[in-house]
Amino acid sequence: MSVHETGQTGSPLGVAMIGYAFMGAAHSQGWRTAHRFFDLPVRPEMNLVCGRAESATRDAAEKLGWAAWTTDWRDVLDRDDVQVVDICTPGDTHAEIAIAALEAGKHVLCEKPLANTVAEAEQMSAAADAARSRGVLSSVGFSYRRTPALAQARRLIAGGAVGTIRHIRAQYLQDWIVDPEFPLVWRLQKDKAGSGALGDIGAHIVDLSQFLTGQRLTEVAGHLIRFVDRRPLPAEASGLSGSGGSEAHRETGPVTVDDAAVFFGRTDGGALATYEATRFATGRKNGMRIEINGSAGSIAFDFEAMNELHVYDATVPAADAGFRRIYVTEPDHPYTGAWWPPGHGLGYEHTFVNEIADFVRDVATGTPPTPSFADGLQVQRVLAAVERSSDDNAVWTKV
Amino acid sequence: MSVHETGQTGSPLGVAMIGYAFMGAAHSQGWRTAHRFFDLPVRPEMNLVCGRAESATRDAAEKLGWAAWTTDWRDVLDRDDVQVVDICTPGDTHAEIAIAALEAGKHVLCEKPLANTVAEAEQMSAAADAARSRGVLSSVGFSYRRTPALAQARRLIAGGAVGTIRHIRAQYLQDWIVDPEFPLVWRLQKDKAGSGALGDIGAHIVDLSQFLTGQRLTEVAGHLIRFVDRRPLPAEASGLSGSGGSEAHRETGPVTVDDAAVFFGRTDGGALATYEATRFATGRKNGMRIEINGSAGSIAFDFEAMNELHVYDATVPAADAGFRRIYVTEPDHPYTGAWWPPGHGLGYEHTFVNEIADFVRDVATGTPPTPSFADGLQVQRVLAAVERSSDDNAVWTKV
Amino acid sequence: MSVHETGQTGSPLGVAMIGYAFMGAAHSQGWRTAHRFFDLPVRPEMNLVCGRAESATRDAAEKLGWAAWTTDWRDVLDRDDVQVVDICTPGDTHAEIAIAALEAGKHVLCEKPLANTVAEAEQMSAAADAARSRGVLSSVGFSYRRTPALAQARRLIAGGAVGTIRHIRAQYLQDWIVDPEFPLVWRLQKDKAGSGALGDIGAHIVDLSQFLTGQRLTEVAGHLIRFVDRRPLPAEASGLSGSGGSEAHRETGPVTVDDAAVFFGRTDGGALATYEATRFATGRKNGMRIEINGSAGSIAFDFEAMNELHVYDATVPAADAGFRRIYVTEPDHPYTGAWWPPGHGLGYEHTFVNEIADFVRDVATGTPPTPSFADGLQVQRVLAAVERSSDDNAVWTKV
Amino acid sequence: MSVHETGQTGSPLGVAMIGYAFMGAAHSQGWRTAHRFFDLPVRPEMNLVCGRAESATRDAAEKLGWAAWTTDWRDVLDRDDVQVVDICTPGDTHAEIAIAALEAGKHVLCEKPLANTVAEAEQMSAAADAARSRGVLSSVGFSYRRTPALAQARRLIAGGAVGTIRHIRAQYLQDWIVDPEFPLVWRLQKDKAGSGALGDIGAHIVDLSQFLTGQRLTEVAGHLIRFVDRRPLPAEASGLSGSGGSEAHRETGPVTVDDAAVFFGRTDGGALATYEATRFATGRKNGMRIEINGSAGSIAFDFEAMNELHVYDATVPAADAGFRRIYVTEPDHPYTGAWWPPGHGLGYEHTFVNEIADFVRDVATGTPPTPSFADGLQVQRVLAAVERSSDDNAVWTKV
Repeated sequence: MSVHETGQTGSPLGVAMIGYAFMGAAHSQGWRTAHRFFDLPVRPEMNLVCGRAESATRDAAEKLGWAAWTTDWRDVLDRDDVQVVDICTPGDTHAEIAIAALEAGKHVLCEKPLANTVAEAEQMSAAADAARSRGVLSSVGFSYRRTPALAQARRLIAGGAVGTIRHIRAQYLQDWIVDPEFPLVWRLQKDKAGSGALGDIGAHIVDLSQFLTGQRLTEVAGHLIRFVDRRPLPAEASGLSGSGGSEAHRETGPVTVDDAAVFFGRTDGGALATYEATRFATGRKNGMRIEINGSAGSIAFDFEAMNELHVYDATVPAADAGFRRIYVTEPDHPYTGAWWPPGHGLGYEHTFVNEIADFVRDVATGTPPTPSFADGLQVQRVLAAVERSSDDNAVWTKV
Repeated sequence: MSVHETGQTGSPLGVAMIGYAFMGAAHSQGWRTAHRFFDLPVRPEMNLVCGRAESATRDAAEKLGWAAWTTDWRDVLDRDDVQVVDICTPGDTHAEIAIAALEAGKHVLCEKPLANTVAEAEQMSAAADAARSRGVLSSVGFSYRRTPALAQARRLIAGGAVGTIRHIRAQYLQDWIVDPEFPLVWRLQKDKAGSGALGDIGAHIVDLSQFLTGQRLTEVAGHLIRFVDRRPLPAEASGLSGSGGSEAHRETGPVTVDDAAVFFGRTDGGALATYEATRFATGRKNGMRIEINGSAGSIAFDFEAMNELHVYDATVPAADAGFRRIYVTEPDHPYTGAWWPPGHGLGYEHTFVNEIADFVRDVATGTPPTPSFADGLQVQRVLAAVERSSDDNAVWTKV
Repeated sequence: MSVHETGQTGSPLGVAMIGYAFMGAAHSQGWRTAHRFFDLPVRPEMNLVCGRAESATRDAAEKLGWAAWTTDWRDVLDRDDVQVVDICTPGDTHAEIAIAALEAGKHVLCEKPLANTVAEAEQMSAAADAARSRGVLSSVGFSYRRTPALAQARRLIAGGAVGTIRHIRAQYLQDWIVDPEFPLVWRLQKDKAGSGALGDIGAHIVDLSQFLTGQRLTEVAGHLIRFVDRRPLPAEASGLSGSGGSEAHRETGPVTVDDAAVFFGRTDGGALATYEATRFATGRKNGMRIEINGSAGSIAFDFEAMNELHVYDATVPAADAGFRRIYVTEPDHPYTGAWWPPGHGLGYEHTFVNEIADFVRDVATGTPPTPSFADGLQVQRVLAAVERSSDDNAVWTKV
Repeated sequence: MSVHETGQTGSPLGVAMIGYAFMGAAHSQGWRTAHRFFDLPVRPEMNLVCGRAESATRDAAEKLGWAAWTTDWRDVLDRDDVQVVDICTPGDTHAEIAIAALEAGKHVLCEKPLANTVAEAEQMSAAADAARSRGVLSSVGFSYRRTPALAQARRLIAGGAVGTIRHIRAQYLQDWIVDPEFPLVWRLQKDKAGSGALGDIGAHIVDLSQFLTGQRLTEVAGHLIRFVDRRPLPAEASGLSGSGGSEAHRETGPVTVDDAAVFFGRTDGGALATYEATRFATGRKNGMRIEINGSAGSIAFDFEAMNELHVYDATVPAADAGFRRIYVTEPDHPYTGAWWPPGHGLGYEHTFVNEIADFVRDVATGTPPTPSFADGLQVQRVLAAVERSSDDNAVWTKV
């Protein structure tokens, strides 16, 4: 008989995940898949998942592929088979869990936004600094940085492809709450979510614009708006979906976050940046768009066509110049060499697989991963400055 | 012999044009062409063109097809063969010419921006009101309103296609002065041009956003920026082009207008609007883009694909919904029925031909044309409010 | 008094046009406009237009701007004020008019297709050769060659931008007769139009593919199809539009041309070419698309976005390669320098203005214009070979 | 201690996979992932992988997640823990493996093309029929059918969205062998691959066009071409990549398959179909495009934007009509409800996960999956007819 049992090489890296909804499903796909495509020095083991509701957690454990489950997140702290804690809960719980995990010597990957308040984010960042000195690492999950086209854009910009940066133009356009009957899910409640479009999706474009350019916002002026003040209480809700109760006996509750945010800012590199984050851009499903214009060229991106990067080179003769649509699936592009042959594009979830591959490699080699909690804190400070500006008549406000 | 001389029907409408550069060439094409495609109640006669420089004016008269020429614009005032004065000069001369022409009983079509200051625009608007009571008509040349796709967008919005408007998102992106060696042409001088990107192209998107939605901006917050402070004095310059002197002996002068403007605003209909006007969007040549999102749908447009309108209908089932790319060349679309069969698109200049056809028809029938000088004044007030906000730390500023 | 009458420089070039419908309107726009934008050595004078119906011809003369009119095309032959005869009639009359005009010493611009049969085209080509030896010039109106983006494509290909050509992929997709109730206009009658989609629009893509590549088709295999065999007789019809009679008493007649044609071919340069011409491509209004792939790169074009050319350079590293969207409105692009500043696109009709500018310049300087009648004949031979192949079971057929 | 071990529900379905290269990696991702997103009645167990080379197979087993490995595919036949055999080898081995597996009572999923010859495909189809009568099921892996946008297109067409079908227009454009120095990998060798572009990618568009329309090709006329006759022997090669030996001592071998194929066909529903499959479309990476035009509308798709479907509804007024870009990520679209919220697109590999989810569900419920081996045979017959036509002067050839 010529059949052999398959061996396993590499030491295991035990992982526990807190939360199992939309982000939990995305991260689980990352933990299951990263070592199947990337050559990683260690082998992630999905040892424990934590949730609040017993039966839902049990079901999630089986569905998502975690070996064990618990309803008490503190169980992760003293388990020897957990080296990494992956936090996928709403923002109001990030600080407590992350700080406890770091203090327990666990590496932490925390979903964005880092926290619901700057104060919490500061504590987390301090805890991360302290932990790092003990070799315990952490990162905040701005997964869009791992979109191959955007990682390539950063590489190009760092190499001078756009020259002196003049304009940053970023939009994150969604439309999932255009209908006023869409229910009051947790993302629309300030106590759970911290903020609305600003913190949920505005955070992404703030982070990306700084990641791509290597510049930081120093001042912002902005305005938050809420178009729908009350919504039906949800009968059930998870992720980005939900449904209201029956029409007749429906109760409503107050929406306590912003529906949309617009702001502009100045960077420490002299660029003028504009941002718009909204959940009311009817017809735009996941329109995360960013364009950067500089003295030597431009780059443009839209997540609805996530495998494409558009690059303009202003140094060629005008008659030859144009935005080049680069289909970012070549072996020399970031991440894509681990996946499929040229021309075979990736999807939304691959940003998480790529993120987890990076995180695992960093943890295994003792390299502080990026973005750090300090990076997450800085984004938080930008968002807080936008809120202050909005409260203060749109006046320029220091970050 | 069966050859017959061609007769001419319709009474003539005598036209004089002041200015003959970029806008003068565009308007001349309109005056030559409008009655060839549209059925007009009168027949425009291109009787007189006025300019400052003698030989250039003489050459322009022949090239552009004007029967006579002069270097003194006051010559138009007392000529019986001039019923319409078309003003295509830089903004600093608009008020004087327009007011004199209206007082002389001439109908006036005046290029945008209406004037370089609100004060001038107010005088012009008052003069227009006074003239109208005497049957003398006037209009300001926001020609982009005559883009068939945008006229169709207005029609759709007026018919309820987007429902309650939530967002207006407007950009006018150009890149013709990215190179710091581009010379100091009149459009970069405040005394001639009034303002920079804000007044030149920002004016268009302010007008269009109000035209399309039927709503008016009531408050704005914004910021103007200049990236390049000094530029070579032009050896010669006209329109949007120009070239600097020789490198060695080149003198420079100060740029006195903005290079870019960003602002957001509230409308009287409750919408949140954002605007960006820039001449530093490398790779964007004439990227006038506008998108409007509402409770029932959206429309989106980019002038670089001017024959297309993208329309999203949110009232169909989600599985069927998508932005429809309407190729605006059908007989039932605005203006296009006068031109070519479906699928045969128009170009930039057709906005002027359409504009002049509308103007001629209105003048012939005694209908006050739109946009009026009062409309032009209101745009001017918006721009002035943006400038005040920019000077005042980006604070919300009433229009 | 400082008003001066405008002089006229340059000697006149007297033009007569035969036909005044869709193509006549397009050509008239060319004759009216060419010298307004291009510097031409002579000045076209629109002296005479000819049509069959008296009142329609008289009206067209006035509307289109022709100084005189006649219902007998032979009137053009002996008039001293006619140096150029522009033939815009259906194909069945081209040969007789063109040959007579050439023999009368008139330069001839003849709409495509050159003729309805190869035999007629051969006579015309022979007449053109004979006339050329007497200094009398001629050209066939494949106006799409004058699309700036396509002229630029030819320039790039001639300069080696695509290297050894492997593939030509050409489609001309329209949909104006999808409705079986669309009436039986002249373009659907073989005796008038010669052929259907093949000769009307297939001719364009055959010409263009050869023009762009500098290669000629030597063999073809193809198939013609008719989807709708009978249609209502037209109550009235012109150009590409028309309407049937009232439902009740409507008579129908046989469609005698093809509705669509598909074929592939080999060129003398070793390329494999594919073609599809159809009037049944629902939703495609004027989708003339051509893509050329070679060892060094590719070019792609779609007339529905006529100001754009997409160019792929395979000689750069794979990570940087992508189709560049060149907005063909720069001063260094063909034709566009005569028109507007960069970013201000042209429309369908500009191909005719550009064509007439080229033709006038050639005639004035005694340069044989292209495409010649011989070029038109060669296209005719390709189309005839496609028809023979279709009749002969799709077998490879020599041109 | 509140930590619970995760249970497993559902009975296992033991799977063995033969082959582990490009397709093997894609299928493994499917087997690992399908039950994580879809609710399946059984739970796939990845029990055995088979390959030829010992060390590569061992490594693949670990990398791809198979519990055991062997170098003799016959080992799969008598194992009780194998209910499904998934064949991902080159086409020359499909028949032998598939027939043996079916006879051994294993359900078979076989990569496309079904076989290298019609004769083999006929044997396989007969074996599949015989097996089905014993409850043993089989399917051929035309995975693109599982692209949500294409599954949605089929649903729309079946519902009458395009009406009477006139045109099918299909292209599969790649460029991975444009460089003549690209080595002679197995896909360029007739004995391994059966055919070149025709069988590899042409097979996909033949299958899809029939799948989408529900119509079958009855006759074809076509031409195969080879642009590069000899290539360097590969130093090493797998999947779609490879590298030649060192320049100096390099040996070359003959390319024995086609580089490109063009053909047109008639369907049993009266449509005219055109096809082009090529590996020489410079700049097109995975340009699988299909458009279908009918009396009521059109659909259009390009795999390089695989989450989009473009739908034209010809039954609305012309002024409102346009191609709708449907972002196929809604819960009501096929497959997407199992994945992410609206707007979060999928990638290439998801077609395999979807395919395996369908296959597993069918096997578990005893439903014959589609496409069947008979469907694969029919595609094979179309391809064979194209080859015969190409050998016979492009003459129409019955399928």
